[in-house]
Amino acid sequence: MISKLMLAIQAKGNPSICGLDPFPALFPPHILNNRSADALDRDATAEAIIAFNKGIIDAVSDIVPAVKPQCAFYEQYGWQGVRALEETVKYAKNKGIFVLIDGKRNDIGSTAEGYARAYLGDTFDADALTVNGYLGTDGIKPFLSTKRMIFVLAKTSNPSSGELQDLRLNSGQTVSEKMAELCEQWGAETPHCGNYSNVGMVVGATYPKELADLREKAPHTFILVPGYGAQGGGAADIAAAFDSNDEGAIVNSSRGILYAYKKDGSRPSEDFASAARDAAIEMKTAIADALNSRKTR
Amino acid sequence: MISKLMLAIQAKGNPSICGLDPFPALFPPHILNNRSADALDRDATAEAIIAFNKGIIDAVSDIVPAVKPQCAFYEQYGWQGVRALEETVKYAKNKGIFVLIDGKRNDIGSTAEGYARAYLGDTFDADALTVNGYLGTDGIKPFLSTKRMIFVLAKTSNPSSGELQDLRLNSGQTVSEKMAELCEQWGAETPHCGNYSNVGMVVGATYPKELADLREKAPHTFILVPGYGAQGGGAADIAAAFDSNDEGAIVNSSRGILYAYKKDGSRPSEDFASAARDAAIEMKTAIADALNSRKTR
Repeated sequence: MISKLMLAIQAKGNPSICGLDPFPALFPPHILNNRSADALDRDATAEAIIAFNKGIIDAVSDIVPAVKPQCAFYEQYGWQGVRALEETVKYAKNKGIFVLIDGKRNDIGSTAEGYARAYLGDTFDADALTVNGYLGTDGIKPFLSTKRMIFVLAKTSNPSSGELQDLRLNSGQTVSEKMAELCEQWGAETPHCGNYSNVGMVVGATYPKELADLREKAPHTFILVPGYGAQGGGAADIAAAFDSNDEGAIVNSSRGILYAYKKDGSRPSEDFASAARDAAIEMKTAIADALNSRKTR
Repeated sequence: MISKLMLAIQAKGNPSICGLDPFPALFPPHILNNRSADALDRDATAEAIIAFNKGIIDAVSDIVPAVKPQCAFYEQYGWQGVRALEETVKYAKNKGIFVLIDGKRNDIGSTAEGYARAYLGDTFDADALTVNGYLGTDGIKPFLSTKRMIFVLAKTSNPSSGELQDLRLNSGQTVSEKMAELCEQWGAETPHCGNYSNVGMVVGATYPKELADLREKAPHTFILVPGYGAQGGGAADIAAAFDSNDEGAIVNSSRGILYAYKKDGSRPSEDFASAARDAAIEMKTAIADALNSRKTR
């Protein structure tokens, strides 16, 4: 539900979301029981992921309003990894954190209903799910009936996103602009909070021009902004995702927060969680500064 | 690998694939231990899914070359459902059946690598995966390096697929034609078998005109044809997916085979597997007849 997300952002005063992308090879040694990540079987890897995520969630839960576990990093460890995803979602929700599962799911009819039941129903019980809109309305409606949120891929952060998304249609729109227009339509019938509906979209920090364009063209569609930090998007780039009230967007950082302890080598690995906390605070400040400096320009 | 798929089709003389979409409410009572599907917890549901799928696989393994488990129907039962998916894939592969996981996965960089490791690597160890190409080459390359097959959504079978896929680009192509062109490019550098590469595409039986158009425009791209049977596509409709050698396509049926025992009410539920086998044979015959009758027209 959009209101839950916006209230969580307001409560923390921080429109950012911490991606939970577990790379066991980057975990502190004590989380791996001092073994090599490669030496762990799937059960032990799943346990390490849960321990790592709980440490991160505990450390950032009063700073960031939301977390975004990315399915692929769990699914690669089979059902044990998926169990770790379930545990992670449950733990974060119990801490009052908004949980967006990044699964980019897409299908139709009873299959889309299955995904909706899985991720936005009792099974994983997340607050939101990323979705790919290539299949049109049939692939979106089943998610909307859960009354929870979806974020539809519009303009993704990667270098080749333009191969399809930047192509211009006969209507004069690009494909990503068309997708944003569809998001506006899909969202219109859903509950709103202020300007925004339960249908959000994904627009990468690496494309600040498109961020500004899509913010303007889809004024009721909340934006999830990946690509900050590791992928090259800076704080100034993401300001364009926000409306004139500094609302309407949430910025993701994954590796920049999770593995902050490795960044300058000055933090012992036991401090991974407090290093993550410091990085989350630093990101909060950077976003606030970017939004403030745009006002004074 | 495309050669594995084409050899399997040739060995069975049957270009069809059986979708494994478990609906526990449609399972025979003995598979559910004579309880209601709703009364089963997730562990018991997963056991029922495994038992049902093994029954189906045993019954059709000498008729159909390939099976297509659809992820959503497993993920809705959480990690227990995902465990059932793993068991199903392993069982089918041990019977020599080509396994295509229908996950429509899509992401970039290390995340796409995670999905590739999950589904086309040691974890689930499938032969092929369906993929959504909206993110461009970055979302495709990590799968190709596994040397296994992907099927990229081009023109999907659902009523609203045209909302994006039928739109015409400035180039004159529709979005689905552009996607088929990208499939040709992505496939060019992969291993081939005859005309076909490791990159296939999905084109619905419900759009026979587009099937014929995309078959012609993407002559190196194998077609997975969903939408036969339950979704309304008939045997005559799917003939257009095949090249002049009657190659280049595989037609999916899920519910029409799996739950054939319920169709006319004349088969006892204990016979679900033999009813499925009969339906699979009927479909094989219908496709062969459609391909033959097109020659004599």
